[in-house]
Amino acid sequence: MSDDLVGPATLIEAATLVEALRVRGITLATSESLTGGLLGAVITSVPGASAVYVGGAIVYATRMKAVLSGASPQTLATEGAVSRATACELAAGIVERTGADWGVATTGVAGPDLQEGHPAGTVWIGVSGPDGTSAEQRFFPGGRAVVREQTVLAAMALARSAIVRDSSGDG
Amino acid sequence: MSDDLVGPATLIEAATLVEALRVRGITLATSESLTGGLLGAVITSVPGASAVYVGGAIVYATRMKAVLSGASPQTLATEGAVSRATACELAAGIVERTGADWGVATTGVAGPDLQEGHPAGTVWIGVSGPDGTSAEQRFFPGGRAVVREQTVLAAMALARSAIVRDSSGDG
Repeated sequence: MSDDLVGPATLIEAATLVEALRVRGITLATSESLTGGLLGAVITSVPGASAVYVGGAIVYATRMKAVLSGASPQTLATEGAVSRATACELAAGIVERTGADWGVATTGVAGPDLQEGHPAGTVWIGVSGPDGTSAEQRFFPGGRAVVREQTVLAAMALARSAIVRDSSGDG
Repeated sequence: MSDDLVGPATLIEAATLVEALRVRGITLATSESLTGGLLGAVITSVPGASAVYVGGAIVYATRMKAVLSGASPQTLATEGAVSRATACELAAGIVERTGADWGVATTGVAGPDLQEGHPAGTVWIGVSGPDGTSAEQRFFPGGRAVVREQTVLAAMALARSAIVRDSSGDG
């Protein structure tokens, strides 16, 4: 097993995302559960990220999803932390708190243990922007490090895709 | 240049910190500027981190230090983001917001550019716990990736040292 937190493909996607934000003059915030800061770390590994990335929340404990990123305690209780509704509320919540143009959120099970009955590798990614908020589910087979890196990669790709789509619609 | 965000020594220090928290039954939160989530990412790379690590804030943009982690706008304006006072306010602020037993904060200049007149490598690390809050300055020569990793390593070592000292004093 490698000691690397992420590989070259993930760092390249981060640079591509930062550039997509930079050319449009828009900003991004993050809200991270299972990735625990890795998404922010990867984005800020890119020199010049400060022009487009404001920061965000690490909402590792369930209660922090409400306290730091605006998920409703009722959603957490009824839908669970690993759910479409929570992913959406985290993404929309971090946009509201930071004032960034876009927010991207990760929630899921890094493993090795089950969480809320979901197996390791079950992940929801939320993206929130000027036209609304949505979330997509992914399942990543593999160990804890693989699940976390694949989640970071998918979150950046989904955010970039939504941003590109949004600006084509506007322009 | 390596693509690794961190090396093995940093991951081992993370496991040691998680164990120091676990055996004492206490919790930790983080507030990160120049490390951008890397400190949280490294801590949560340890399986079982959820027992002791609650989450925190990524306060990359200066304004986020006030919005997400309780630094006072006046301190940011008079002392600057890269200062002892800001490091202390970030650490104490994240403890207050999360309810964690301990908080650790990073603020400094990853480079390559100067910030507030400070050269790349200038770093302040704040630690807040039951007996109060303090901060220490470090200077890490090296590129952006080196400065960030060394900051993460120093933040974990300072937090662990304060936690161990505190529990010897109590016991």
